[in-house]
Amino acid sequence: MHNLLEKLGYTPTDKLLIIHADDAGLCYAENRATKKALKEGIVNSYSIMVPCPWAYEMATFAKENPAFDCGIHLTLTCEWKHYKFGPVLPANEVPSLVDGNGHFYPKRAMMKENANPEEVKKELIAQVERALSWGIQPTHLDSHMFTTGLTKGIIQVYREVGKLFKIPIFLSRQLLNDFKMDTEQYLRETDFTIDNVFTGEWKWFEGEGLAAYYDWSLKNLKEGFNIILIHPAYDDAEMQGVAIDHPNFGAAWRQCDLDYFTSNRTKNLIEKYNIKLITWSNLKAILHKD
Amino acid sequence: MHNLLEKLGYTPTDKLLIIHADDAGLCYAENRATKKALKEGIVNSYSIMVPCPWAYEMATFAKENPAFDCGIHLTLTCEWKHYKFGPVLPANEVPSLVDGNGHFYPKRAMMKENANPEEVKKELIAQVERALSWGIQPTHLDSHMFTTGLTKGIIQVYREVGKLFKIPIFLSRQLLNDFKMDTEQYLRETDFTIDNVFTGEWKWFEGEGLAAYYDWSLKNLKEGFNIILIHPAYDDAEMQGVAIDHPNFGAAWRQCDLDYFTSNRTKNLIEKYNIKLITWSNLKAILHKD
Repeated sequence: MHNLLEKLGYTPTDKLLIIHADDAGLCYAENRATKKALKEGIVNSYSIMVPCPWAYEMATFAKENPAFDCGIHLTLTCEWKHYKFGPVLPANEVPSLVDGNGHFYPKRAMMKENANPEEVKKELIAQVERALSWGIQPTHLDSHMFTTGLTKGIIQVYREVGKLFKIPIFLSRQLLNDFKMDTEQYLRETDFTIDNVFTGEWKWFEGEGLAAYYDWSLKNLKEGFNIILIHPAYDDAEMQGVAIDHPNFGAAWRQCDLDYFTSNRTKNLIEKYNIKLITWSNLKAILHKD
Repeated sequence: MHNLLEKLGYTPTDKLLIIHADDAGLCYAENRATKKALKEGIVNSYSIMVPCPWAYEMATFAKENPAFDCGIHLTLTCEWKHYKFGPVLPANEVPSLVDGNGHFYPKRAMMKENANPEEVKKELIAQVERALSWGIQPTHLDSHMFTTGLTKGIIQVYREVGKLFKIPIFLSRQLLNDFKMDTEQYLRETDFTIDNVFTGEWKWFEGEGLAAYYDWSLKNLKEGFNIILIHPAYDDAEMQGVAIDHPNFGAAWRQCDLDYFTSNRTKNLIEKYNIKLITWSNLKAILHKD
């Protein structure tokens, strides 16, 4: 696949990086921070959780700001305690995806145990179609809590949805390995995969801090395709309410992401390490040029 | 109907008052403020907008705090520009209630023009049933932007839903008159109605301020059944985002409501004017004792 680097006008030793804000649309603290990270920071790509309450607000931003990559953060779980959402489709059309209240399951494992791939496919298509109906031109598809990579059947559905709409999908051998999935079984020769994925971890958050993790990531970035997945938001009352009893990827965590990726220091590191920022739009132009 | 006063243990010259917080569940700023107004203020009754994103969070409060009246704020409109919600039922089951995005209409007039009373009935029942499924024991039904009082057909549906679940419904001759509806045609002898309804108005907000309006209301309260409808919330980033371009009942307005109804000064006025605070639970015990 790595003649892709050349098709993009780079050499095989170049370090290409997408800095990607997940979770746009989750809540207003997330939307405000994502917009700031795009406009004032070095984030150039984000994706919207279509089933979430603030997705429509973010969609109005996407329409008015087509320069930034805007993907769809396909959503099949709701990990929050009190702030709940469910599928775009009526719950009775996708019963395997919801709990007794019609909300998504909070855990990946519960979703994996229950989800029927045919219902997953219907729901993913409905999420893309709703985004299209709002006027979004999606540059890529990715997935919240990587639930679209949970089983071979669901990965296949994910691949089909990408093909149906001619939108690149985010896949990563490393991420599948991290989740203890057999990439030989799950991935195909023709899949485009991102070589290296960086996302904050609890041990860093508790330990040296997320800024130290991002410093380390930028310093150790390898040649090829890299992505840093972040979740910028303000550590305010709303975000604290959304993430109540959930410090992992919680409000303070998200504020760190916002601060780090809007600082001049970080911009200077990108230059210092000679990192080339690319977008999903660049990839889409090559992967789906037919 | 005014032997009801006596059944409640009061005399016909007593000034009975419900101080009611509408719009719980709308957003987290509203939920936090509503809880504060109940716990620290003199608000003793509120109602939840079941279709809204933060309704579930408020429902958990309702279950843990049964001492406060909790009604259902039946919702058929969404007046906000970017923060959108729609029916509890799938949009394709209640097409007359939604716009092209599946969201409620923003204006009362648009809803009135389009809404099919049969679909209104299905949706109202679904809202009550969802609240029941969350473990709420509703003390009353009322309605957002008084849309359940828009046409004779819809008032009849509203009445039927109250009867079906044996829950008192909020009706007011004065409110119907304010909306230029013929109360002779709309109301029945057997309807329980609140005599006097007080709710902030733009001319006061712009002029002397809402506190002056509430001072005036308490001072001029009449004998019989009175209700003050308020909308407490924090004037923070989230509420400002919800109410963007909508200063009428906007974020600053809602902060005034919170401040006024949690102040000791207001508590003292209630005592000074010899106002008796009552609840919908008191009324329910009499209106639906069979």
